[in-house]
Amino acid sequence: MRQTVLFTKTRKNAPKDEVSVNAQLLIRAGFIDKVSAGVYTYLPLGLSVLRNIQQIVREEMDALGAQEILMPALTPKELWTQTGRWDAIDVLFKIHGRDDKEYALGWSHEEVATPLVQKFVKSYKDLPVAVYQIQDKFRDEPRAKSGLLRGREFSMKDMYSFHANEEDVESFYARAQEAYLRVYTRCGLDALVAEASGGVFSKYSHEFQVPTPNGEDEIYFCASCGRHQNKEIVQKDETSCPHCGAPREVKKTIEVGNIFKLKTRFTDAFDFVYTDRDGGEKPVVMGCYGIGPSRVMGAIAEAHHDDAGLIWPESVAPFRVHLVSLAKDEDAARADEIYRALAEKTDVLYDDRPDASAGEKFADSDLIGIPKRMIVSAKTLKQGSVEIKDRLTGDVQMVKIEEL
Amino acid sequence: MRQTVLFTKTRKNAPKDEVSVNAQLLIRAGFIDKVSAGVYTYLPLGLSVLRNIQQIVREEMDALGAQEILMPALTPKELWTQTGRWDAIDVLFKIHGRDDKEYALGWSHEEVATPLVQKFVKSYKDLPVAVYQIQDKFRDEPRAKSGLLRGREFSMKDMYSFHANEEDVESFYARAQEAYLRVYTRCGLDALVAEASGGVFSKYSHEFQVPTPNGEDEIYFCASCGRHQNKEIVQKDETSCPHCGAPREVKKTIEVGNIFKLKTRFTDAFDFVYTDRDGGEKPVVMGCYGIGPSRVMGAIAEAHHDDAGLIWPESVAPFRVHLVSLAKDEDAARADEIYRALAEKTDVLYDDRPDASAGEKFADSDLIGIPKRMIVSAKTLKQGSVEIKDRLTGDVQMVKIEEL
Repeated sequence: MRQTVLFTKTRKNAPKDEVSVNAQLLIRAGFIDKVSAGVYTYLPLGLSVLRNIQQIVREEMDALGAQEILMPALTPKELWTQTGRWDAIDVLFKIHGRDDKEYALGWSHEEVATPLVQKFVKSYKDLPVAVYQIQDKFRDEPRAKSGLLRGREFSMKDMYSFHANEEDVESFYARAQEAYLRVYTRCGLDALVAEASGGVFSKYSHEFQVPTPNGEDEIYFCASCGRHQNKEIVQKDETSCPHCGAPREVKKTIEVGNIFKLKTRFTDAFDFVYTDRDGGEKPVVMGCYGIGPSRVMGAIAEAHHDDAGLIWPESVAPFRVHLVSLAKDEDAARADEIYRALAEKTDVLYDDRPDASAGEKFADSDLIGIPKRMIVSAKTLKQGSVEIKDRLTGDVQMVKIEEL
Repeated sequence: MRQTVLFTKTRKNAPKDEVSVNAQLLIRAGFIDKVSAGVYTYLPLGLSVLRNIQQIVREEMDALGAQEILMPALTPKELWTQTGRWDAIDVLFKIHGRDDKEYALGWSHEEVATPLVQKFVKSYKDLPVAVYQIQDKFRDEPRAKSGLLRGREFSMKDMYSFHANEEDVESFYARAQEAYLRVYTRCGLDALVAEASGGVFSKYSHEFQVPTPNGEDEIYFCASCGRHQNKEIVQKDETSCPHCGAPREVKKTIEVGNIFKLKTRFTDAFDFVYTDRDGGEKPVVMGCYGIGPSRVMGAIAEAHHDDAGLIWPESVAPFRVHLVSLAKDEDAARADEIYRALAEKTDVLYDDRPDASAGEKFADSDLIGIPKRMIVSAKTLKQGSVEIKDRLTGDVQMVKIEEL
């Protein structure tokens, strides 16, 4: 895509009330625009990154055998009263509609997924089932000051799995945990698994946490046995690991995912049972698994930037190549040719702005953070080459145009 | 995908309160599930169709040079008071959030798109710009009884174009109209353009209408000059065409899109001006363009079905091929082989259910409506063939397995 066509531009400053690094960089670089606290528009560059992350999540969920669906955000009150959560969730956005019909905006979708799957599952032969969706969620967060890390509207992949017994949940849960770790690795994030509160039914849930200096969360990191814990479940005097006794270190982190064993918390609420092999009725057992693609995008921005701007991992970058032309006059036509040839092979952002200086172009390219930059100038063209620079390492090499 | 894996099943009956043909068929065939009036979950088959339609829309908008973004559904009250629409739109879902913060759920996005584009457009050189999104919209419809044709939450592609002058809007508007007609043609719909109310600023807007016996709309159809009109703008005595004088016919239709020239209705509200070539400030002129992929899906179901079920156009069908196996015992393994080979080349739904009768399988296949059906049975395997049946015409041919 030509930058002279791209309607967004980089900005000198982010809005003054944006204090998080991710929001400041993403707004200045033209990836997102702030509409309200915790509510953003994804601009073309940002939508591309968000889609790349969503696609990685989708591939890993599909590989687990989960089936993609799309549930509504508008969910009737009756479903929430049936599970007792209408009054229990303080971040639930509630709507009073026509004819006194009340709705909640989906904050999580156990209330929709459970009765849905119940319609199709009657027998042990129909189990297990895992469904997931990638959809916008809504939460009336009290503090929405962390950019994409804590949105009032945000992209979420939520998966719900349904099983005949505990052992089957355990086995799927373990596979889901591996799939989650693959998602983070593919997105360029080093995520740790940390034990967190399991709620009423389980001892622990598991969170995926990325260590970064600006993290909102804190984990007790055990280098010895690797069973880290969210600070929230650590007793005051538990500086040593309760699993192995080793001393622990506190790390600031960003939570990028959370998985829970729900046992029969929701299937009981909907009387969701199945007929087992022996003809008896048994309750269906559930797990749920959440990962927020927009939050992952924010976490990548927090983990991968320098003073000059963003540095995207190749897997999620908005384009594969940033072609920056410093060519003037008749050379400009040759730069255009290189762009057209390259664009047939790969996704290219092409800085073809005739009036921007080299300094402006490099500063914008640093800010936008596409990892591979190609520079075309009178000098490189004389050598029949382009200069390829790695945004991360700063390594530079000259490559012949015909070898691109 | 194997039907033994697909978690949904066909159903004998749709919910009793679903009166529309599209909802009845789509629910019975396992494409959607009803959550509340006008609110549906898209199941794997339905999500596939919805995505196919969205992708066709995306390709045609991209070809117009429009840039895809994603705006939030949660939009702050301030934006709506600035245009005077907070109290004027009766289908607006309103939310009272934390700290007395009020929001509307996006019903249309002029209030977000206009100040967004304003941030980047300063000069005539920055114009024209067209942005679009494919996103869920929310409307508190008084009568949500038409399935996907009138949802309280529904998929929408909305595009907003910004121009230096009226002539430029006119030119883009004409190209957008052609792009819309290409979308419908690619989706298997014969859409007509009809003049409709233009609101305060224009004489006419234009609607895209698909004639069907169960349509909620009515148009005055002029076979002579082709300028049809929505009944809403026709005076009682205007049975003849106001453009050419010919007699007109009334047709029942489904509206599947609507485009408007907005002039400066919204840019005035946000003081959105640009600096023209002569240095003077001028107001930016807008157009807007809406097409609902979920409504298009409903319209296709209304237009393309028979007594046995749905008949999808190939371009939007959930799978390219429905492979139905009637093979038993050792033949079943050969059917599996055919599936695996075929699945490497194309999207296949494979009815591998061991316990369903041929009658059940054909009835389900008729209901689901994938246009190309391949039948594998002991008889076809003896000939080294599969039987290929066209769901629409009923035409049958035998094809050698090695030629598939």
